[in-house]
Parts: sequence; structure tokens; C-alpha cells
Amino acid sequence: MLAEIITIGDELLIGQTVDTNSAWLGAELAKIGVTVYQVTSIPDERARILQALANAESRVQLVLMTGGLGPTTDDITKPTLCEYFNTTLERNTAVLQEIEGFFTRAGLPLLEVNRQQADLPKACTVLRNSRGTASGMWFEQNDTVFVSMPGVPHEMKGIMQDEVFERVAQRFDRPAIVHRTIMTQGQGESFIAQRIADWAEALPGKGIKLAYLPGPGQVRIRLSASGPDEAALTRVVDEEKDALVALIPDIVYGFDNTPLWQVVGDLLVANNATVSTAESCTGGTIAQLLTQRPGSSAFFQGGVVAYANEVKMNLLGVTQADLEAYGAVSQAVVEQMARGARKALGTTYAVATSGVAGPDGGSEEKPVGTVWMAVAGPDGVESVVKTFSRSRERNIQRATLCVLDMLRKKIQG
Amino acid sequence: MLAEIITIGDELLIGQTVDTNSAWLGAELAKIGVTVYQVTSIPDERARILQALANAESRVQLVLMTGGLGPTTDDITKPTLCEYFNTTLERNTAVLQEIEGFFTRAGLPLLEVNRQQADLPKACTVLRNSRGTASGMWFEQNDTVFVSMPGVPHEMKGIMQDEVFERVAQRFDRPAIVHRTIMTQGQGESFIAQRIADWAEALPGKGIKLAYLPGPGQVRIRLSASGPDEAALTRVVDEEKDALVALIPDIVYGFDNTPLWQVVGDLLVANNATVSTAESCTGGTIAQLLTQRPGSSAFFQGGVVAYANEVKMNLLGVTQADLEAYGAVSQAVVEQMARGARKALGTTYAVATSGVAGPDGGSEEKPVGTVWMAVAGPDGVESVVKTFSRSRERNIQRATLCVLDMLRKKIQG
Repeated sequence: MLAEIITIGDELLIGQTVDTNSAWLGAELAKIGVTVYQVTSIPDERARILQALANAESRVQLVLMTGGLGPTTDDITKPTLCEYFNTTLERNTAVLQEIEGFFTRAGLPLLEVNRQQADLPKACTVLRNSRGTASGMWFEQNDTVFVSMPGVPHEMKGIMQDEVFERVAQRFDRPAIVHRTIMTQGQGESFIAQRIADWAEALPGKGIKLAYLPGPGQVRIRLSASGPDEAALTRVVDEEKDALVALIPDIVYGFDNTPLWQVVGDLLVANNATVSTAESCTGGTIAQLLTQRPGSSAFFQGGVVAYANEVKMNLLGVTQADLEAYGAVSQAVVEQMARGARKALGTTYAVATSGVAGPDGGSEEKPVGTVWMAVAGPDGVESVVKTFSRSRERNIQRATLCVLDMLRKKIQG
Repeated sequence: MLAEIITIGDELLIGQTVDTNSAWLGAELAKIGVTVYQVTSIPDERARILQALANAESRVQLVLMTGGLGPTTDDITKPTLCEYFNTTLERNTAVLQEIEGFFTRAGLPLLEVNRQQADLPKACTVLRNSRGTASGMWFEQNDTVFVSMPGVPHEMKGIMQDEVFERVAQRFDRPAIVHRTIMTQGQGESFIAQRIADWAEALPGKGIKLAYLPGPGQVRIRLSASGPDEAALTRVVDEEKDALVALIPDIVYGFDNTPLWQVVGDLLVANNATVSTAESCTGGTIAQLLTQRPGSSAFFQGGVVAYANEVKMNLLGVTQADLEAYGAVSQAVVEQMARGARKALGTTYAVATSGVAGPDGGSEEKPVGTVWMAVAGPDGVESVVKTFSRSRERNIQRATLCVLDMLRKKIQG
């Protein structure tokens, strides 16, 4: 079953707002077996909205629209819907009461433009908005369902959850869809593709689609299948998921879009272990990622951002002799940083980075992108060196992910 | 002049990736006087790509496409473009050399699928990608220009900046557009709107558009005007920019999308001063932001992420008595943290944060969102407390920006 998403608003086309509604709707629709045929973003213009509705009606059974329902004059979705569905507005008493209650509770004066939010097309089923004053609307015409919702993400999500998903499930027969996402770290898309080529070649014959979703230093691999029998799909997709993991066990760190910092935090908690950080080139990014996780104080004691050599010496105990003999970007120094943080902060593990993030500061021996990374633990310290890229931002990201993955492997043994 | 954006990729329609490319492109195109007519997201399917190209060609003069140029078999944009433009692929020697250099520098073996990235349509002008191996392509057909670029945001942006904007400016007549963006920190959109209401009311009569671009803790205010005479536009927009700054001098920290960390870094360099950080609730985010700036080692010595009380005591010299008497989230502790970092790291200034980021850990006296912030300098230490929000992520962001702005004001006197 096919759906289209139409997002309405000048702010989307001049880049003032990133359209996050479409991705959320696409992900939620995929879960209930609805395939999004197209996403279209158009301005607040009557003729453009009418054209988009007609195009979508000719192609799909479900059209989800967001935006253009505010109280100001630039929002024209509602009168345009009346024109398209050949109906008129009438004031909805129940909705008016809710709007009045909303303004009373907020201690705000109620203006006529706010009352007009209760004027809704006669031809629609009203979808209550528990988080705002713009109601959703459900229309049916020529076997296509149209849903119009406000563009504010949390109001749109509320209407979808409270009013739309259940109605869609009742109204349409849909195939089951099963997705599995395998999270990898440390190898590029083309290397992975080569390692799994034979296996991947057999997937279409089994009715399974494969997709690579690359990000900085990471590649997500998605398997999906659709059909009438959800249990059978789940079995075959999970079988292939296991087969894939067995082919590339060294780079798989998790599943289903869980970020690496979440996996590492969960592992530390599960093992009743703690970590500290000693960061030079990553400049605090490792600590920042680890502390994104609510409750991170259970496993994260703290860290030292040691940009200057004096900080490496004074707070982490790196020796001046080694700094002079090998330079800050060296195995000797990064290992001392990790050991020093583990000792100074009293943690089970410590991670350390020292590298040339760029864009300047590289040499022939240590070009921009050279990063030493170390993990210290109860069994000693391990370190590696990598040459990433010429981009400062990406070098920081990739070193952060690489050393967190070293830590994950060390904890998992 | 009209443009369309077509983003290609199954991952966009099943919501695995939020399309941020379109907003960036829309904002950048607006700056050079190009209006985006529509954004369309479609799957990696030959027939759908061909249809989207034909539709766009009938409507606009510039079509920007992103996605579907990876080395793997699910990426089919390139052969589909050959079909649409009735051309064939040929191996581009210069691009092949760049790809080989890219892999050599990274110390990676070069696979045939990577070499195939150098196979490009004969009919296109190749747009060099300095950040990856998938080249951009520029086609012209029936007075419409088509640009195809990889979907990875930083690669797409690099190609736009290095190769596309200048070509678009040369190829098409557009009205002059003048923008000025005023960066503010510390007050919400509705408060600012109230402070500048009288001034703002007169802008339309002067042909100037005003837009508020709110972000976490910051509001960008953009003034823009378009017309035939760029010099006249510049004069009138700059006059109004100065008038605006005079109305809200306490919250303006910069111009033209310069981030606060860049302004602070520039000020430190200009004053030959250094800074260190002592972060509890912000978990390394201040250090991470300061070190985004290339050359930050000139002013940033390092910092301590002091999550655990032991770290606050051992590395920053916070006293156990004050931790017990006032708690970690207190004026006494945050000021000791700032003083301690300044001393331990030997810097001109130090910034410190200690707060309840959430979602848990709040109390009646110190609810989630309570953050103490301090700046220490040669003249002593200053501190403030704020109650931000219930969102962990936003509390971290807002505390980071607030304390960096305190530092900016202290340096500027």
C-alpha cells in the first residue's frame, strides 16, 4: 500500500526549517507496512497545494499533509482543502470549547483568529489535537484518504498517534514489513560490500532488499522484506541478519540504530565498570558523547582535555622526556595519557587520543589525519594509529568512534 | 529564477535519514536570488528518477539532485542519468588519479568498485569532489541545468561551494539580494520581537524583510532585500542592521552566522589570552566547541570534565566541605571549579559549569535545568545560575552557550 507525504510551508523551501516530519512519518509508516512513494515540499500557495493533492490522489491511497494550519493569514491550507473537496467551513463546538480551555489555562486572551481555528470543513472527520489548537482533518475521495495536520512536529506526532495510525490500520489491507539494521564501525561501504558480495548476491532471490547507509566512520546495513506472512518474513530476515554478522563480526557493534556511545555506556553499566577520558585532538568529543546518555554519571567519572603539553604532563603524568623524544602524537604519549587518566580519575578503563586533526600542523612523518588512540584497562594498555582524512571535523569524529569501539571490544573481551 | 531539489534514496522515504540537504540548499540558493519551487524525495528507482527529472525540466531552470552515487549496486543515479541524457560512461583519468591518491593516503587497497567511481557520463561537466570519491555532474538540456551530487552532506556542500554556486551565478541572471544576519544569545524570539517592535514595523515600507531563526539559546535575526541595485540595497540594509544592534546591544554577539565559539576564539587570539574549561553537566561540550576552531591550540590549553565529585576535588581543588555544605550544583563549587581550572591549567581565563542536566536528578530546590556557570579571570570570578528546560540535550547546549557568552563579555570588558 502506497502513501505520499506533502509538507507545506515557505520556510521549508528557503531552508529556514529542516523537514523532520517526513522522516518520522516514513519510519512510522514503514513499521505498519505502508510504503512512502514520494515526499513533496511545496510553498503556502493555493494552486500548488491543489496540484499536489491531485497528483497524489492519482498515485496513492493515503496522502499525509503537514503545515499551513496556523492562525495567521499566510496559512491557507484549510480554505484550499475546502476548495479541493468541494465543501465549506463550519464552526465545531467541541473544538471551540477545547481552544477556549487551552487559552484560559495559559492565561492568554482569546482572539477571533484563535476562535477561527475551530472552523473546520464539513466534509472531514475532525482529528483532535491534544497539544495545540489546530485540529487534524481526515477526508476520503475516490478511494484515497487525505490527512491534514499542523506542521509543528510534536502536535503532528500526537495526532498521528492518537487518531491516525489506528484508523489507517482499520481502513487498509497492508503487507507485513520486517526491517533489521546492522550497525558497523571501522570499515568503508565498499570494503564491506566486497566482504559480503557472495552473500548479498543471493538476497534478491530470497525477497530481501539490502541497503548501505554510510555515515562518518560508520556504515549501517539495512535488510528488509515485505509480504503477507510476518512470522515467515521475520524468520528469513533474522536468518540473513545472523549470516551477515557471522561474515563481519569484527565490525558489527550493534543493531537498530543504537549509537555506539549508547552501546558502550550500556556495557559499562552492565559490567559495573567506569571510564575516564584523556583527549588531545578530539578536544572533549568523547566525553561529550558519553555524557549524552542520561544517567552517564553511573559509569563516567570525568576526563582531561589535554591540548597543551603542560596539561599532558601536569594532569596526566606524561613525561617530558617522551614528549621530547617522540612528540605528542606518538604511541608512548598516548599510552601514558590513557594510563594517567585511569590512575588520576580512578576508573576501570580510560581512553586516550593524540593526533593531528588539521587543517594545519601535519608533517611528512605525521600528516594531517594521523591519530594515535589508546585504551587502558585492568590488563594493561592497547594502542593503534590510523590516518583518517584531511578534514578536521571528520578526523575528530572518526577518532572518537574508533577509540570508543576499541573500548567496546576490550570490555567484551 | 526557479530551482527544484530532488533527493534520491530509499532511506529518505523510510525515515532512516532526515533530509538536511534540502534545507541547506534552500537557504544557500535564497542568498543568491534563486527560489526553490519544490523539493521532491524519491526512492533509488530508475523509472522514478527519470519521471522526476522530466517533471522538473518542464518547470524550472535549475535542478539539484543529491544521492544515489555510492559505489554499491543500490545506487543507480549515474546509469539513470546516462539514460536521461542519452550518453554513456567513460573513465575520467583525472578523477581516477584523485581516487587512487585518496586511497593511497588512507593506506587502503583500491577496489574495482572504487575505480568505477571515475566512470562518468560523457555529456556532463565533471564537478570535483575534494572530500570523497563520488564526483558531481553538471548537465544542460533544453535550457535547464541539472546538477547531480552525492547525498553525504559534507561532500554535497563541498561540491556546491567549490564548483556550483559560481557556475550558477555566471549562467543565470538573478536579482541582487543582500542579507545581513545578526547573531543574538540569551533572549527568546518573543522577547526580542517585543523589544524591536516599533523598528520592525517600519521595515516593509523600506523594502526589507525580517526573519527570526531561533535555535537553542540563540536567535538569529536576518534582514534581506532584493532589487536591481546592489549598492543601494547594501546601504539600506546596513543602516537597519546598525539600528537593530543599537536597540539590543546586550544580546548581539556577532554577525553572518559566525558561531559563538568562533567569536570567542578570535577574541582570545586577538588578546593573546588563553582559556581552560571545568565542566560538570556540560560533559566536555564547551571544550569540544572551542576546539572545533582550526588553530585552537593557540588559545585553548585544555580542560577537565569533572563529573564525579572526586574529580572536582582531586583535579580542580574543590573542597569536600563545600561539596557537602552546598552540593555540587552551587555557587561555591562552580566558582572553585573555575578558579581551580585556571590555576591547574595556567590560563588567563577559565569557564565552569555545574548543573542538573536531567532527565533525572532534580529536586524541589534544584529542579532539572538548574545550572551554575562561572568565568574566572585575572580580576576574579563571576557566576550566575539559570533554570533552562527539562530537556537534557537543550540544557547542555544552553549552558555551553551561556557561559561562552559570559566569557566573551568578560574579555570585551
